[in-house]
Amino acid sequence: MASLHPFDPITPGEINLATKILHGAFPGVSLRYKKIDLQEPIKAEVIPYIEAERLGKPLPRKPTRLLQALFHRLDTGAFFKALLNADAKNIVYAKELPKEIQGPVDVDEMIAIEQLCLSHPVVQAEIAKLQLPAGVTVCNDPWIYGTDDSKESRRLFQCYMYIVGTDHPQNNHYSTPCKFSPVFDALTHELVRMDYLPTGRDSATTDTQPWKPVETVQYAHDLLPEALRSDLKPYIVQQPQGPSFTANGNEVTWQKWRFRIGFNSREGMVIHNLTYDNRSVFYRLSMSEMTVPYGDPRAPFHRKQAFDVGDVGFGITANQLSLGCDCLGHIKYFDGYRCDSKGTPIQLQNVICLHEQDAGLQHKHTNYRSGAATVVRNRQLVAQMICTVANYEYIFAFVFDQAANIELEVRATGILSTVPFDNEVPGTTVPWGTNVAPGVMAPYHQHLFSFRMDPAIDGYKNTVIYQDSVPMVEDAQTNPYLVGYTTDETVMKKSGTADTAVDKNRVFKIRNDSKINEITYKPLAYKLMAAPAQMMLASPRSFGQKRAMFGTKPIWVTKYRDDELFAAGEFTNQSKRSEGVDTWAARNENVEDEDLVLWHTFGLTHNPRIEDFPVMPMERVSVMLKPDGFFTKNPALDVPPSTQAFNKSTLHPEASSCCSGTKL
Amino acid sequence: MASLHPFDPITPGEINLATKILHGAFPGVSLRYKKIDLQEPIKAEVIPYIEAERLGKPLPRKPTRLLQALFHRLDTGAFFKALLNADAKNIVYAKELPKEIQGPVDVDEMIAIEQLCLSHPVVQAEIAKLQLPAGVTVCNDPWIYGTDDSKESRRLFQCYMYIVGTDHPQNNHYSTPCKFSPVFDALTHELVRMDYLPTGRDSATTDTQPWKPVETVQYAHDLLPEALRSDLKPYIVQQPQGPSFTANGNEVTWQKWRFRIGFNSREGMVIHNLTYDNRSVFYRLSMSEMTVPYGDPRAPFHRKQAFDVGDVGFGITANQLSLGCDCLGHIKYFDGYRCDSKGTPIQLQNVICLHEQDAGLQHKHTNYRSGAATVVRNRQLVAQMICTVANYEYIFAFVFDQAANIELEVRATGILSTVPFDNEVPGTTVPWGTNVAPGVMAPYHQHLFSFRMDPAIDGYKNTVIYQDSVPMVEDAQTNPYLVGYTTDETVMKKSGTADTAVDKNRVFKIRNDSKINEITYKPLAYKLMAAPAQMMLASPRSFGQKRAMFGTKPIWVTKYRDDELFAAGEFTNQSKRSEGVDTWAARNENVEDEDLVLWHTFGLTHNPRIEDFPVMPMERVSVMLKPDGFFTKNPALDVPPSTQAFNKSTLHPEASSCCSGTKL
Repeated sequence: MASLHPFDPITPGEINLATKILHGAFPGVSLRYKKIDLQEPIKAEVIPYIEAERLGKPLPRKPTRLLQALFHRLDTGAFFKALLNADAKNIVYAKELPKEIQGPVDVDEMIAIEQLCLSHPVVQAEIAKLQLPAGVTVCNDPWIYGTDDSKESRRLFQCYMYIVGTDHPQNNHYSTPCKFSPVFDALTHELVRMDYLPTGRDSATTDTQPWKPVETVQYAHDLLPEALRSDLKPYIVQQPQGPSFTANGNEVTWQKWRFRIGFNSREGMVIHNLTYDNRSVFYRLSMSEMTVPYGDPRAPFHRKQAFDVGDVGFGITANQLSLGCDCLGHIKYFDGYRCDSKGTPIQLQNVICLHEQDAGLQHKHTNYRSGAATVVRNRQLVAQMICTVANYEYIFAFVFDQAANIELEVRATGILSTVPFDNEVPGTTVPWGTNVAPGVMAPYHQHLFSFRMDPAIDGYKNTVIYQDSVPMVEDAQTNPYLVGYTTDETVMKKSGTADTAVDKNRVFKIRNDSKINEITYKPLAYKLMAAPAQMMLASPRSFGQKRAMFGTKPIWVTKYRDDELFAAGEFTNQSKRSEGVDTWAARNENVEDEDLVLWHTFGLTHNPRIEDFPVMPMERVSVMLKPDGFFTKNPALDVPPSTQAFNKSTLHPEASSCCSGTKL
Repeated sequence: MASLHPFDPITPGEINLATKILHGAFPGVSLRYKKIDLQEPIKAEVIPYIEAERLGKPLPRKPTRLLQALFHRLDTGAFFKALLNADAKNIVYAKELPKEIQGPVDVDEMIAIEQLCLSHPVVQAEIAKLQLPAGVTVCNDPWIYGTDDSKESRRLFQCYMYIVGTDHPQNNHYSTPCKFSPVFDALTHELVRMDYLPTGRDSATTDTQPWKPVETVQYAHDLLPEALRSDLKPYIVQQPQGPSFTANGNEVTWQKWRFRIGFNSREGMVIHNLTYDNRSVFYRLSMSEMTVPYGDPRAPFHRKQAFDVGDVGFGITANQLSLGCDCLGHIKYFDGYRCDSKGTPIQLQNVICLHEQDAGLQHKHTNYRSGAATVVRNRQLVAQMICTVANYEYIFAFVFDQAANIELEVRATGILSTVPFDNEVPGTTVPWGTNVAPGVMAPYHQHLFSFRMDPAIDGYKNTVIYQDSVPMVEDAQTNPYLVGYTTDETVMKKSGTADTAVDKNRVFKIRNDSKINEITYKPLAYKLMAAPAQMMLASPRSFGQKRAMFGTKPIWVTKYRDDELFAAGEFTNQSKRSEGVDTWAARNENVEDEDLVLWHTFGLTHNPRIEDFPVMPMERVSVMLKPDGFFTKNPALDVPPSTQAFNKSTLHPEASSCCSGTKL
């Protein structure tokens, strides 16, 4: 353990250590684990350590290595959170949580509910009514139970049922949804209720009828009715001298960037201690939360509101990636670990991949007099994670370039969450969804992401400002030709929120007010190229919004405190209201020249296209962080030129000139 | 000539034909050519021809091949526009244009003005006052003379002067601007006026003083004070089986797409007759105009407003691209032709490049039960053009993918237009610019592009609508849980404008109302993923805005008419007001289920960063066109899966395990 860096992910040994400590602390009691993971180290302890690393000074004492565990006592059912000191091998605290708090769903629980549902006699009786032909079966996706009752304290799952028309590991059951949906208590295993789904233009439901066979719209290549394209030629990326990055454990260095790749079961990939040319830029970057509220107003669809980070976790849903499938070129993979319900360490192989890519030109100038051109390509380093949350996939990538830009790229793909729809009367549609196949409707929904940026712009005390571009006053002295424009600046002195404003070209900057650029005479800064998006459409009076207040404003600034990592709060599953960034911003604390955190809510209002079915061509959202007065000139000037000797491109052979002679 | 397609660019033979016809028409008169180019063929003649091509039917008579010429009579100085019939080899018309109309600048004229300026005795006298040391010289960039006087009818150029500190073909003279700027009459070659530039915080100017040497901030690799990075490893794209595209002349086919690449001296690259799987999608796509108004309110900088399409032309400024520098992989190049001032054809080699690229994942789904994954990469076809307009570079690319998406990508790079700035007193700044180097300020400015889309969504009669996502009324019956949302739709029945609206997730669609999708029951459509941006900041009373009304609204819809191609009108140089899309939209014509044109104004409010100097890391803007109910499912399903056998990626070797044993 002595070799672990404070930002290193949890190891299997640490998971075993945690269970050992907890079994000692609860003698004779069986524990059912939800989570054992690294606790984010205390920032005040970390900074002296990483600053000594950065400056090449003798290292001080390491920050305390803390672990956290969530578990149930199987004797009482009580839900506990424990904080453990891995260095001292003891418990800092183990506290029973209030009964209304629900922990996230875990892998074993998901499997258990799925099996519980299928084996339940009431569900089996309902399935029997479908009178399915031989070879046709039923499966279910257990869903997080979106809150609709402030008094509910049971742990509930709503199972959405689907016909499985083909016995194939990639059968698209989302193409054939059933019209009933049982609700279970996850602790007592009781069937709480059988819901029947509205299947037409209104809320009307029907008793289960024999299934009318319908063709499944498949996405798997060997289930397609059509032939695959035969005219796509291979495209191979080769790096004969190897990659330009080096990875020493989880520490990555590439083209003046250095950072540590973290991984935890909740956020998945995290970027720690990002420096450029050995200057601090960000302390921590992470996808803090994501919620998907659905716009179909009818019960029980109103309960479809997932918090994919807090309710499930991008770490435990991260795909184990395969060479040559998910990335191209020279690939380095990172593993992670989670525990199962018994506390056994489970390896998550290849959950993060790291590779370089070429992204076209970064800068070019041709002197038109001499014809001499300087051309520099845009080589990038990509750290990528792909998460499957039941039907949907999210592809998250942090992309670093040589001009000191940082990009968070999100791609939404996977399969739409569908509902049954009787569209036997041609022309039948609903105003809150799209018919995507015979008998299937995909309701409107939003994806709202919270990108958490803990900045360290050349130091740990920063200020967030925004600048609007505004016309100058029409004044004969100062603006005689009426073309002048300038920028208005607003300093966010207190924790709170701000709006994006495309019509003002509003730009948010994170500054270090104590360091002035010697040329511009302005403080060093990075700017956030936000992704302006529609905020949450659910009513302020709805649970949907109350639970996800981060989805109501695109920009939040809070004063840093340990343990404030998740925009919708620590426990989101069946939460009644968020205790997250909205609560912390409301403290109205000074955030000027302070240790602050900037949170950006962005997303997609996703009104499905039929082209998004049966699997969705990715929808891409990009947020960028760019230096703005952080340097004294373009930091990519020293990138070697783009030349044929280096790039070895191929010239397309010209067609024979037999025809060219006929041209005038 | 018989082999030419109606959309083929002009040939050298046609340029020679045009001069021959015109010399015959103006016997004994010397003509000075500005432009000889293809006249866009008459759409009503073209459609039967390309429809026959598409449907494999016998081809009707070809549309008349028309050429256009702009020229001056050297005896009278009169400016003419002629339309020629290349089939009949005769003149359709040759008309003298009104005296106040100025044609675009051409290459020979630019060189002539540059030389005129440097050799003029008054300019030489001013340069002498600089008392430049040996080896230090002066150069100038002639600038289009932005209108500031409604009565001006001379053809004017404003020359911005720079110190050339180093005799090198890539010396960055923009780092060392002079403080005087002569204005010339381009026809009489007279010096109209010597302007002196404001050099401080206000409009004050000074007499020319001896030059105080200052270090030039260079961008060329062999002029940099620092060493180049040595740790960037080669990244080579190989296509051992060749590309997936075929090019037959200017006709390109790739992955169900087919189109013709056009080229003209004004717009440069144009996409004609774009079909997918042999279904029409767009008749013509082009970058119709671009204006760059500057925000520095002080004379003479208020005249800096370039129309890079209309005043100069992206065709004649297109870079002649080099293998391995501007693109990676397997590259096909296209040439173009322009004429010089004598009417001689000039080949523009490699002005458009075509290549494939890999853009990460297009779609993925993992069945979490079986672990089985379907992964399809996002192969793209890129048609690219790079234009150098004096200091700036624009990289334009049309990007096609396998999910039937079309992207227009614009990258702005090159060098900021700079002005001299006395910042000897530390802390001196201006509110309309950024100090980018000692003695140099880069003023705020905007880049406003007009993307012209002539749609043919499964047919030539289309309708533009926009859809807003809006919360449902809070009603106990229809929206009891307060989470419902729906879309409001507005049909643009009459030609006119619309705004983007991020807060409403406003989406613009181009529909074919006569073709209903059999599954969605909605008309077939493509949607425009607009790039919402701040519109023009110059006052409505300024010439800057009056000349570029297209810059005041992001969306314009007009009824199609031949010859209405350019958003700010045919002649923009020293124009007094635009006679373009604003004029045509104002006709208030029916555009519902009509042959219409959609124009999207987008751009950048570019308040320079110091990191944008001395050459700017590219700023990227993307506009997309996506099918929305055009198909009955994801059109990329039949793209073969992403496999290691096909992609041949390389696994990063793991570090030796010497340290791993020390981990717990």
